[in-house]
Amino acid sequence: MIHFECDYLEGCHPSILQRLQETNFEQCVGYGEDPHCERAAGMIRIACDAPDADVQFLVGGTQTNATVIGSLLRPFQGVLCAATGHINAHETGAVEHGGHKVLPLPTTDGKITAAQIRTALEDHWHDANHEHIVQPGMVYISFPTELGTIYSKSELEEISAACRDWELPLFIDGARLGYGLESSRSRLLLKDIARLADVFYIGGTKQGALFGEAVVFRNKELARDFRYCIKQGGGMLAKGRLLGIQFETLMENGLYFKLARQADRLADKLSAAFRAAGFDLLIEGGTNQVFPILSEEQAHKLGEEFGFEYWTRTPDGRDAWRFCTSWATTEAQVDTLVTALQTLKHE
Amino acid sequence: MIHFECDYLEGCHPSILQRLQETNFEQCVGYGEDPHCERAAGMIRIACDAPDADVQFLVGGTQTNATVIGSLLRPFQGVLCAATGHINAHETGAVEHGGHKVLPLPTTDGKITAAQIRTALEDHWHDANHEHIVQPGMVYISFPTELGTIYSKSELEEISAACRDWELPLFIDGARLGYGLESSRSRLLLKDIARLADVFYIGGTKQGALFGEAVVFRNKELARDFRYCIKQGGGMLAKGRLLGIQFETLMENGLYFKLARQADRLADKLSAAFRAAGFDLLIEGGTNQVFPILSEEQAHKLGEEFGFEYWTRTPDGRDAWRFCTSWATTEAQVDTLVTALQTLKHE
Amino acid sequence: MIHFECDYLEGCHPSILQRLQETNFEQCVGYGEDPHCERAAGMIRIACDAPDADVQFLVGGTQTNATVIGSLLRPFQGVLCAATGHINAHETGAVEHGGHKVLPLPTTDGKITAAQIRTALEDHWHDANHEHIVQPGMVYISFPTELGTIYSKSELEEISAACRDWELPLFIDGARLGYGLESSRSRLLLKDIARLADVFYIGGTKQGALFGEAVVFRNKELARDFRYCIKQGGGMLAKGRLLGIQFETLMENGLYFKLARQADRLADKLSAAFRAAGFDLLIEGGTNQVFPILSEEQAHKLGEEFGFEYWTRTPDGRDAWRFCTSWATTEAQVDTLVTALQTLKHE
Amino acid sequence: MIHFECDYLEGCHPSILQRLQETNFEQCVGYGEDPHCERAAGMIRIACDAPDADVQFLVGGTQTNATVIGSLLRPFQGVLCAATGHINAHETGAVEHGGHKVLPLPTTDGKITAAQIRTALEDHWHDANHEHIVQPGMVYISFPTELGTIYSKSELEEISAACRDWELPLFIDGARLGYGLESSRSRLLLKDIARLADVFYIGGTKQGALFGEAVVFRNKELARDFRYCIKQGGGMLAKGRLLGIQFETLMENGLYFKLARQADRLADKLSAAFRAAGFDLLIEGGTNQVFPILSEEQAHKLGEEFGFEYWTRTPDGRDAWRFCTSWATTEAQVDTLVTALQTLKHE
Repeated sequence: MIHFECDYLEGCHPSILQRLQETNFEQCVGYGEDPHCERAAGMIRIACDAPDADVQFLVGGTQTNATVIGSLLRPFQGVLCAATGHINAHETGAVEHGGHKVLPLPTTDGKITAAQIRTALEDHWHDANHEHIVQPGMVYISFPTELGTIYSKSELEEISAACRDWELPLFIDGARLGYGLESSRSRLLLKDIARLADVFYIGGTKQGALFGEAVVFRNKELARDFRYCIKQGGGMLAKGRLLGIQFETLMENGLYFKLARQADRLADKLSAAFRAAGFDLLIEGGTNQVFPILSEEQAHKLGEEFGFEYWTRTPDGRDAWRFCTSWATTEAQVDTLVTALQTLKHE
Repeated sequence: MIHFECDYLEGCHPSILQRLQETNFEQCVGYGEDPHCERAAGMIRIACDAPDADVQFLVGGTQTNATVIGSLLRPFQGVLCAATGHINAHETGAVEHGGHKVLPLPTTDGKITAAQIRTALEDHWHDANHEHIVQPGMVYISFPTELGTIYSKSELEEISAACRDWELPLFIDGARLGYGLESSRSRLLLKDIARLADVFYIGGTKQGALFGEAVVFRNKELARDFRYCIKQGGGMLAKGRLLGIQFETLMENGLYFKLARQADRLADKLSAAFRAAGFDLLIEGGTNQVFPILSEEQAHKLGEEFGFEYWTRTPDGRDAWRFCTSWATTEAQVDTLVTALQTLKHE
Repeated sequence: MIHFECDYLEGCHPSILQRLQETNFEQCVGYGEDPHCERAAGMIRIACDAPDADVQFLVGGTQTNATVIGSLLRPFQGVLCAATGHINAHETGAVEHGGHKVLPLPTTDGKITAAQIRTALEDHWHDANHEHIVQPGMVYISFPTELGTIYSKSELEEISAACRDWELPLFIDGARLGYGLESSRSRLLLKDIARLADVFYIGGTKQGALFGEAVVFRNKELARDFRYCIKQGGGMLAKGRLLGIQFETLMENGLYFKLARQADRLADKLSAAFRAAGFDLLIEGGTNQVFPILSEEQAHKLGEEFGFEYWTRTPDGRDAWRFCTSWATTEAQVDTLVTALQTLKHE
Repeated sequence: MIHFECDYLEGCHPSILQRLQETNFEQCVGYGEDPHCERAAGMIRIACDAPDADVQFLVGGTQTNATVIGSLLRPFQGVLCAATGHINAHETGAVEHGGHKVLPLPTTDGKITAAQIRTALEDHWHDANHEHIVQPGMVYISFPTELGTIYSKSELEEISAACRDWELPLFIDGARLGYGLESSRSRLLLKDIARLADVFYIGGTKQGALFGEAVVFRNKELARDFRYCIKQGGGMLAKGRLLGIQFETLMENGLYFKLARQADRLADKLSAAFRAAGFDLLIEGGTNQVFPILSEEQAHKLGEEFGFEYWTRTPDGRDAWRFCTSWATTEAQVDTLVTALQTLKHE
């Protein structure tokens, strides 16, 4: 049985375990103030070309989203996002638990547009009763999106401009940031993300780490007292060194990007194989997630040897399924699946 | 200038002011434990044919909604409602401020169906990742809805049955309850509401009181410790007598219903006049709100003499406006408007 | 039976009812944007000698405290106050419901000192682990305090200076503000309060209104978007006119202060009578609350004719009780009690 | 430089790293539903002699405290605890962030008593205005306490009985549970904790794991839908296997207890050495924390070679410092410190 259900099935890249081993008996101060975190933060600032950035490390994505959003909004403000956004759909209301409404915008491909943001703001402020309505206070987008699609450079620049015109912070959920940047369809660099977002994170959990998300605030003022928020939100890891060590390792020699690139290439191969075998794809994102349309029978047949997830019903009543590659996926695993697809085709 | 913008433009029915005058120097214990509240609660229990009901008085609608909802949900639960529901659209995120997500269901007429509720529950519990999704924990509907429409008896019975099958409390926002019950289209009685809902309120603010909403819990167990919630939510009026006195007066000799009936009849007259003058109505609810389609010029012209509110743009790009009658509206006021409509028609 | 349990036993000053009567059929826009609120706000700005102040009207004290505090704090901040402060002791955790810790400081007389505030701030910021501790973000005091004591002008100036040095807003709960200012022991004027606080309120509920608290923000910037907070917190009264009319009436010709002065003088008389009859007082505040020490027998005897409340057990094991005068208390009522005390003395 | 500042200075017990290595490329389902978590939970149920217990794994202590407390309280309820309790003093208001007041009880040794709990409940329910006061809804104690002291079996039985009489859940923070159970002063077994608490946790972070706390609910009903709370609170680790693997390892052959015992014995040795060298101890808990009284000079001198933390000023104006041993402390490290103490004595 080979599993493609998600991109966090395995532990971590072996070099991380090795570094944990090597440093295991170092005595480090806790809570992210150790030399490893400091060094990792420095490496990230350089990689982002953002010397004034504030970098903080949290454990997981939902925690990071709720903490960042809660730290930036006033109580009556909400966060604009795609209806499919992770904060709207798959975080058990963590943002609302912190007191804030998520303000979903309609989307078909997981992306929202600068025009949607501008309209939402205009509508709010033109409404005579705007004090009776949650005030949009920031914008959340995912790069790549939950459907594996990516914003183009110009789309992102327009969104960023809309946010700056309206003085709203732009927050980019980068749980799969590397997979997005390394997509063959992307022209964006990490430093573009750092320039266009006010705050974003470099996801570790799904990209080779045991866990961990590195939050980057473009300017320190926005991050003021953010560490109180981390602690209050339960996200301050006692042994913060673990986060520092993991991001040091991932940032070294571009390992983070290499792992992502390899996963994206394997996903491309898989996409091509699905198409070659005559299957439609729900969407083509170019990142590490592939969403073929399979009949129940086909899914059942494939499911005897491969693990994957039901995704959604399409508007025309067919079923889309999700296959993920990851930093840990091997060419051999993908090839086995590709072969099975060719067989499936002929049945 | 005659105003039809909303149904809370005037003070209150004169008999309430008179009772306030008569009782002004009575010394009453505070916080709703005075004899007036007790008597009003008793009158409401009788009117609802609900001898075991717990009745509590709060000041306003948003406060009541947030307090009731917060008292019934566990932290990770949300409340199902129409996307147009007041809690979703016009309460500045009061429910989310209390930590809960509002779970909007699509609607065109302000109503939701039992089928939508059942599907939402099935979808939630069939989702393999349901723990990552806000759990539907109660259902909120408005009677009448924010668009002035009303549920039929069978619709409401089906919704109630769906809620009981899934063990979800059904909460009916009755900010305009009387206007709904007295609609010529309605066959529902107050006791039907009390039988079908688990908790609902009899709105005073928009129906002849200075302010005040009477919350009725069908069974006392659901109301356990609810008064702590009222206090914590800032809704416990020090001089609770004011609420008791107002509801005593409104319940006496069916004044509450008489006032509502009169407003509904005037709204019917107004609807007929709009139609007679050739105007389409956005929706025909049969309660105290009328939503004609007017061009900008027509609205401007009418706006010289009458106050009313912009409501929404219709799918086909026209503009709908809202005119409300209320307990305070006079036949003469409506007749003046009707005459103006006839003139407007010929221009 | 004559009641002295609290200062909100009766309805309101008759001139308020009269004004409600006179204005009852005016058609006013809702939510505090009507001409009465505007006029009342103007009168308050003049009375406070604070032409740039932002004035908003809410319904009750707990609601006002939670809304103001929630609007000013960041999520990880708490509010310093006396351990006896109303927000700490008698609001069912309304501040915590909004996400903030109340940071109580020890007190014996209901007051806190500038030195306590400075020490709390120094302790916080000198603690190496301050990010693990709630950050003091504002100061709340009551004038008069919950024990009926008042801050002297110099005490208040020192507290205000400490707050400004540390850049913390100072919030004064003025639920009984008039009773404090009119105390024979007070040299403070309303404009001193307005100068020394960043935000405070002029309590109506306990001082002649049916309900209502007028919040004054010394500068508009601090009040930015505060009306969203009012709405979200359920405190935005639909018929805001009711608040405007009441404060117009109370501010006219200094009615608010006259009513308070009269209540304070009657309380002074009562204090003197208790002392003359040989009873100790728990504390002597000089406002409208009197706290005599009575044995259980004495309390029982007095309780046959007069209503009053148990307050607390003293450190030396005796029982203190609370008697309140109010705007509604008559000289005759107090005289009846004074006579009873003289009798009680001789038993 | 040898560090004794806290018990989370190093990584983890080597056998954990080894197991992570061995299992690194296993493909496991996420979110704590993998075979490792299942096996670890089973081992814990057996160790607790609690076959019906529900066991869940979270990442850190603050997160665990806030999540458990938030899952059990109704909105207007608070949690009783020692004033020194971690939730009251060192979690940046995480409990309040979730809407609940912490209700601190005075303590000198970090412990509270059954009598204090009973009095708090009686006081609450006897107060005529109890609806204006936060309702005690559960009890939180730490075993060992934040001062390294431990409850005796009879103390804990009395607390448990008080909680059951009042129908309040008893929650034991076991961040250092092993150090408490293995104290030479303790007669309590893990199964006693499991029998007397309604919910508690077995702390991993400070006792040999990289991170992780195993929450044990004595009965499943209390844990109903708790996993939604974990997810909403940001505590659901994507690679839950990491928690399962760590607790499997710690539970195997009693490693958890062996490591704790060794740390306690080294702390005992250190305590004895401080006393032998003539130093007073602030408190003698018998667990892994030692709190000697040192002058500033002595602390400065020792600080040249050893790391330790300032703890508190004693009532008589001296300074107490904290030295922790841990699972990672070696006999040689302690001996070096002991020798230094003997030298310090003679200076």
